[in-house]
Amino acid sequence: MSEDRMQKIVSLCKRRGFVFQSSEIYGGLKSAYDYGPLGIELKRNLMQEWWTDTVHRRHNVVGLDTSIIMHPDVWKASGHLAGFSDPLVDCLVCKERFRADKAPQVAEGQPAPLAFPDKGKAKLALSLIQEKLGVELERMKKVLRGATGNARGYVCPNCGSPFLSDERQFNLMFRTSLGPVDPTGELAGVIARGELDGLDERAIKARIDAQLKPSAVYLRPETAQGMFVQFANVQSSLAMKIPFGIAQMGKSFRNEVTTKNFIFRSCEFEQMEMEFFCRPGEDDQWLEYWKEARMSWWRRYANQPDDFRLRAHEPSELAHYAKGCFDVEYRFPWGFDELEGIANRTDYDLKKHQEYSKSKLSYFDPETRERYLPYVIEPAAGATRGVLAFLNDAYTEDTVPDAQGKAQTRTVLKLHPRLAPIKVAVLPLVKKDGMPELGRALADAFLARGINASYDETHAIGKRYRRHDEIGTPWCLTIDKQTLEDGSITLRDRDTTEQERISQDQAVAVIFEKLGA
Amino acid sequence: MSEDRMQKIVSLCKRRGFVFQSSEIYGGLKSAYDYGPLGIELKRNLMQEWWTDTVHRRHNVVGLDTSIIMHPDVWKASGHLAGFSDPLVDCLVCKERFRADKAPQVAEGQPAPLAFPDKGKAKLALSLIQEKLGVELERMKKVLRGATGNARGYVCPNCGSPFLSDERQFNLMFRTSLGPVDPTGELAGVIARGELDGLDERAIKARIDAQLKPSAVYLRPETAQGMFVQFANVQSSLAMKIPFGIAQMGKSFRNEVTTKNFIFRSCEFEQMEMEFFCRPGEDDQWLEYWKEARMSWWRRYANQPDDFRLRAHEPSELAHYAKGCFDVEYRFPWGFDELEGIANRTDYDLKKHQEYSKSKLSYFDPETRERYLPYVIEPAAGATRGVLAFLNDAYTEDTVPDAQGKAQTRTVLKLHPRLAPIKVAVLPLVKKDGMPELGRALADAFLARGINASYDETHAIGKRYRRHDEIGTPWCLTIDKQTLEDGSITLRDRDTTEQERISQDQAVAVIFEKLGA
Repeated sequence: MSEDRMQKIVSLCKRRGFVFQSSEIYGGLKSAYDYGPLGIELKRNLMQEWWTDTVHRRHNVVGLDTSIIMHPDVWKASGHLAGFSDPLVDCLVCKERFRADKAPQVAEGQPAPLAFPDKGKAKLALSLIQEKLGVELERMKKVLRGATGNARGYVCPNCGSPFLSDERQFNLMFRTSLGPVDPTGELAGVIARGELDGLDERAIKARIDAQLKPSAVYLRPETAQGMFVQFANVQSSLAMKIPFGIAQMGKSFRNEVTTKNFIFRSCEFEQMEMEFFCRPGEDDQWLEYWKEARMSWWRRYANQPDDFRLRAHEPSELAHYAKGCFDVEYRFPWGFDELEGIANRTDYDLKKHQEYSKSKLSYFDPETRERYLPYVIEPAAGATRGVLAFLNDAYTEDTVPDAQGKAQTRTVLKLHPRLAPIKVAVLPLVKKDGMPELGRALADAFLARGINASYDETHAIGKRYRRHDEIGTPWCLTIDKQTLEDGSITLRDRDTTEQERISQDQAVAVIFEKLGA
Repeated sequence: MSEDRMQKIVSLCKRRGFVFQSSEIYGGLKSAYDYGPLGIELKRNLMQEWWTDTVHRRHNVVGLDTSIIMHPDVWKASGHLAGFSDPLVDCLVCKERFRADKAPQVAEGQPAPLAFPDKGKAKLALSLIQEKLGVELERMKKVLRGATGNARGYVCPNCGSPFLSDERQFNLMFRTSLGPVDPTGELAGVIARGELDGLDERAIKARIDAQLKPSAVYLRPETAQGMFVQFANVQSSLAMKIPFGIAQMGKSFRNEVTTKNFIFRSCEFEQMEMEFFCRPGEDDQWLEYWKEARMSWWRRYANQPDDFRLRAHEPSELAHYAKGCFDVEYRFPWGFDELEGIANRTDYDLKKHQEYSKSKLSYFDPETRERYLPYVIEPAAGATRGVLAFLNDAYTEDTVPDAQGKAQTRTVLKLHPRLAPIKVAVLPLVKKDGMPELGRALADAFLARGINASYDETHAIGKRYRRHDEIGTPWCLTIDKQTLEDGSITLRDRDTTEQERISQDQAVAVIFEKLGA
């Protein structure tokens, strides 16, 4: 049922222009998505709400926007170049490539049956295993029996085979090359001159890496490091006093293997992160403060606030440098999963960057005349995940009476008005008698006030209401015969479908008020 | 003088938190910049103005946000993989690497003297040329004579040498690799197995490229292709009727060689692009329309509108597929340079993507019942360049009387209020008598209305005015003794420095009105 719900959301996203598969006409690009006309408005609105709440409304938080490609030493200092990798394994039977740490477990010596989609595939596998691996198994229809788990303790998640390649470490950061020369051209010269002759595979790999290294740069896997690296510039240029925060929104990139769960995990995603610098000893109270502040921010836009929860990390889950961490989790169709992490990172990052860059990153307190390395509380949220959470929170199927009073099922996106892509739709009942002119003028009046309005005159009025229900437009304003007589229009509420008449002249003020703008 | 002006702007940008060098504590990353707390607000404001004007205020333009990494075939179809490259050359004498098409010209057979910074360097070069190239030149102090231009027709821009390496094509797109395996690991295996033995350098390079190719993806060098690739999805999901436009803002990446002119040309930059799809035959009039619309948009925010000009491309400058093109140029300190191109791209792009993707990208007109490939008018603007243009347009040094009536020089950024990072600063005259409380409450009232206000209580009032002049805050509101008596505050205008008293209760409404919000 929850899978069905997910499919309905994916389908609505494509049909109504929220989210498309990236490069779809070329067969799509794995794990990358495009935001259509309504999706980009929803995403921008969510991120604008975060920026307003985090940066504008607080006197002690300022914004920042650092480049996606940073100096490669940043990732040495942060630990991403060393540790940011998945152990990957290939199945020698079905060729599936998978993450070792996520594979089904089978203890050494325990039966490890291999299962295939049909008898033919099972026969092929049987002979392959015999020929290439020299192992005899027994076939029972689609299943091969006789294999047992080995010291690895896991098997292929696709066919169940314990016959696997070595584990390989794979860095999740995208590597590219900065500078005017393609390093693979230089590498060709090295090979042609015989400089790699006689080396073994491992030594060759090391030489290739050394050849690529001088120009190697990486796409950032998180925005956070930008705030640490520019801590001193921001602090001094704005004369910020501790405690204060630096916030950044933007794209990050991870070469992720999985493509399930729609936009939840994609190779290119948007983050909303803040580093809050405080005095050591005051870090615990600021962690408390931010976990409450962030939790209440998420719930502010929710229909089902209880679907958002805070979960404290177990001591065993904590990164070695973190003193404490909470996850904001949302009840996705596949279960609770992470939206944001709020961590006490201590002075770990500033200390590392100080060490690697040889720049002083400590803070001089003008009042106590002390110099110290601040502690950092980091609320790090996923904007892309936030979009999916609120789409799921908003997706509703209910039953409402149609024009004849007959019950009919409708799909409605009950998005919070501040998140809704279009705030108000202006609809002339018919395309004549001056109604379109009145409608366009009213829509323009909204736009002039900075409220995103849509003028819509095609199809019957009931069909237009349904369309706007489905894309989450909170209010429809309809111009009808009576408007021509007394200047009143109907205001229809998306969630209740109830209508009231208001004065056309008051429309902008009424909606402005409802939006809390 | 203009270089001096540029340096002053760069210095102000760093000092006041507009723009920092990327990864500065690590020695900086060439050609990449970070936007500080004020710079990100300025950039966001400029891009928001574009979005409002281009998308929200028009019933026939919708937004889009496509991924930075797209299917690699997109760049085959667009021509970027083949043609998007600079011819690069190395000087065999001084090792300078430069673009052949930008090098100083010396005709074949004409004298080509080589010049060096000092006699020692000239002597070294003389013997190097003799030994390695077998050419005898004559030295006159720091200059070597006797060489002549060759068939290439150009010389090294650094030392003047005609002794050059072959031209190499270098693709301006950043290449990276998508997928769970590092292709250089696979390559090491190919080399270790001797598969490249006996091949020449060119063949080896081809094998390396073939090895990297299956997983090769590119960072987009422009946002435009996203709109072409998603044309059909956007058109059908929103039932758009031609003529209509699709607009996108976002980052693009080019592996640029130059690092001069500050943020004008950086390897990572932000674009604001729109593709306007129209009926063939109506393209000329839409090109006219958009060139006027875009030009007036730029001038709307300018102090010196004449520093923005439209320049028609000469027929020789036009891309082979373009029917017409205009550049919006701005008078930068180094001369007029491009801010935006407005081109008639005909049906070139849709035709190419239709051919390469085998997907139908034609449009069916429901009224005429005709099917055709639309023509496209593309206004493609640089947001990052726009930031630099408006910083330059706003940067002013003038003379104003100080508190004692003495003339003093001040620096003021006369940014358009809609672009200014902070719209209004609230300043208590002194930090007592309840003035800070009143000030904070007033700043909060602005923020609640969505107007970015700053509360600022440090230093003498004159110094605070100067600081806000320098960062472009259009209005300062000061709370003084009289405020405590009658509730009035002073409103100071950044450009005239004139002050008037207004009611504290009216402050938000007055500024809201001035902002035209």
